[in-house]
Amino acid sequence: MRVTIAVDAMGGDHGLSVTVPAVSNFLAATPEAQVVMVGLAAPLETALASVDKTLRPRITVRAASEIVEMNEPPTDALRRKKDSSMRVAINLIKSGEAQACVSAGNTGALMAIGKFVLKTLPGIDRPAIATQLPNARGVSTVLDLGANVNCSSEQLLQFAIMGSALATVIEGHKNPTVGLLNIGEEETKGNELVREAAELLKCSGLNFYGNVEGDDIYMGTTDVVVCDGFVGNVALKTSEGLVQMLYQFLKDEYTRNWRARLAALFSYRVLKSFKSRLDPRRFNGATLVGLRGVVIKSHGSADELAFEYALRKAYQEVAHGMLERIAQHIEAVSAQLPTVAPLDA
Amino acid sequence: MRVTIAVDAMGGDHGLSVTVPAVSNFLAATPEAQVVMVGLAAPLETALASVDKTLRPRITVRAASEIVEMNEPPTDALRRKKDSSMRVAINLIKSGEAQACVSAGNTGALMAIGKFVLKTLPGIDRPAIATQLPNARGVSTVLDLGANVNCSSEQLLQFAIMGSALATVIEGHKNPTVGLLNIGEEETKGNELVREAAELLKCSGLNFYGNVEGDDIYMGTTDVVVCDGFVGNVALKTSEGLVQMLYQFLKDEYTRNWRARLAALFSYRVLKSFKSRLDPRRFNGATLVGLRGVVIKSHGSADELAFEYALRKAYQEVAHGMLERIAQHIEAVSAQLPTVAPLDA
Repeated sequence: MRVTIAVDAMGGDHGLSVTVPAVSNFLAATPEAQVVMVGLAAPLETALASVDKTLRPRITVRAASEIVEMNEPPTDALRRKKDSSMRVAINLIKSGEAQACVSAGNTGALMAIGKFVLKTLPGIDRPAIATQLPNARGVSTVLDLGANVNCSSEQLLQFAIMGSALATVIEGHKNPTVGLLNIGEEETKGNELVREAAELLKCSGLNFYGNVEGDDIYMGTTDVVVCDGFVGNVALKTSEGLVQMLYQFLKDEYTRNWRARLAALFSYRVLKSFKSRLDPRRFNGATLVGLRGVVIKSHGSADELAFEYALRKAYQEVAHGMLERIAQHIEAVSAQLPTVAPLDA
Repeated sequence: MRVTIAVDAMGGDHGLSVTVPAVSNFLAATPEAQVVMVGLAAPLETALASVDKTLRPRITVRAASEIVEMNEPPTDALRRKKDSSMRVAINLIKSGEAQACVSAGNTGALMAIGKFVLKTLPGIDRPAIATQLPNARGVSTVLDLGANVNCSSEQLLQFAIMGSALATVIEGHKNPTVGLLNIGEEETKGNELVREAAELLKCSGLNFYGNVEGDDIYMGTTDVVVCDGFVGNVALKTSEGLVQMLYQFLKDEYTRNWRARLAALFSYRVLKSFKSRLDPRRFNGATLVGLRGVVIKSHGSADELAFEYALRKAYQEVAHGMLERIAQHIEAVSAQLPTVAPLDA
């Protein structure tokens, strides 16, 4: 399937030095894809000179005169920078010139511009941030990771719908299982929000497993894990901190003395393989799901490989019809639950 | 300092086969301590026959005719089992015969009985569950871990007070830093609850660092990390699941083929030392903090060593005056903040 992806060429900590080679590698690996690179005209053209001649025809350039800074308040980016590379890239979805947008820029600005320009899908109150995390059996799709700090039970249901669509599109699960993140498996556990959400999920027609706990994310108990953005963000950041600490502890132990250093030499392949299974670059690309378009946020510090993974995710979501799948789920769920607004509402 | 600890000898998955040897080892290492073992008279006396004769005089036996089951509803345990080993052990604090109680039994029941029998400290609305987690620099004291799913900002302030007292008593920090778990460092981040709590903490006279994120727990950014019980429980369980997954991945890699198995042999000491740094037994013992007495919950599956750590924690909290320190903090904070009830309220 022909897919055109708009790329915010200037976004992230490294800008063009990462986005251009990543796009180049992505196009080489994905013959059906085309890219519109959006950025400051002169440096962008210069950077594109390095791209292989066979790939260059599949890259279009769209000029933008401004750049959203990484720490700029989202409202400023939205109101004052109407010609930013991020904004112009998202506009390309709106105009139909692209089906997806990938940016390594400011998350808050990307969400604000995405909501303003694209609006949310019918039946979705607010978009969420979703990503895949590795687990003992494959990956879990987890959302929301920080877009919504105060959620209603209906929103958690919408997250479940969107998460199910993502797990199907990205992981190929036909009828993905959905877990509701709670502090115990029993139905009486948790706060009112999750208890109400559990009631909705039970009647939703989705493949609802029930409550799951934090450890279930990494045990792979369910394909999708749903939670509010505060809890999801804490779970994600806590995980990042813990992995960093464990790596440091492993490094400490493997450099403690000459015996340990020798053991490290013998373990070189093993440790490399271990680290590669957890390589955050392979999981790069959070989906701003719920917008009328595929918008992928790459980590700001992404390197070539990481940014390429974000591009691949955008491609998959378009090629496998993520938006259509969400619409189908909304329709099916609203038929079950009168509280959910039908598609044409 | 002479410290008497009441031990629920029957609690946990292993009961007497763990509690008796753990008490024995604890007494051998802690000459100032005495223990009251509470349990079914006959099996308890039989189990105590194995204890070294020099230690036996420091163990008193108190009979109890019932046992709280691990999955029994807390209200049932509270109302119907007035002669359970757990209840009798907590009664010993109330009567002044012990200064602390340690149980590996049902957490909910321990909390319910603790609140009913001992009541909360002046100025504390509801007790919290606190524990220490390893970080890159030492340990973090984190609370609440699941006792309170709906918290007010005043309660988060109380958690900060109690966490500070614990960090002083257990880790020797004179003026521990307190972080408020949030989804960003900026003051504008998070929900209303944490923003209000931040305002209270700023004026509290505690050593408030500001907002921290999930990764700060393991970076050791602050000595104490405060959050509501839902978020804290998810962070803790997520961490447990992630560590299990990483161990499994390491094991997978080190058993993949004969080269990897050889590397594992060479790495035996290194991996052993790595695992011991994270050994959950060394961190066993959650404090049910905020009660008028030191109550420590050991993990249900604790072995001898783990249960001994829980006993040590109880000893430290009594010996270093945890309850008095909380009272001092409450007094100091209520002098700063009129919203906090003074000690004699």
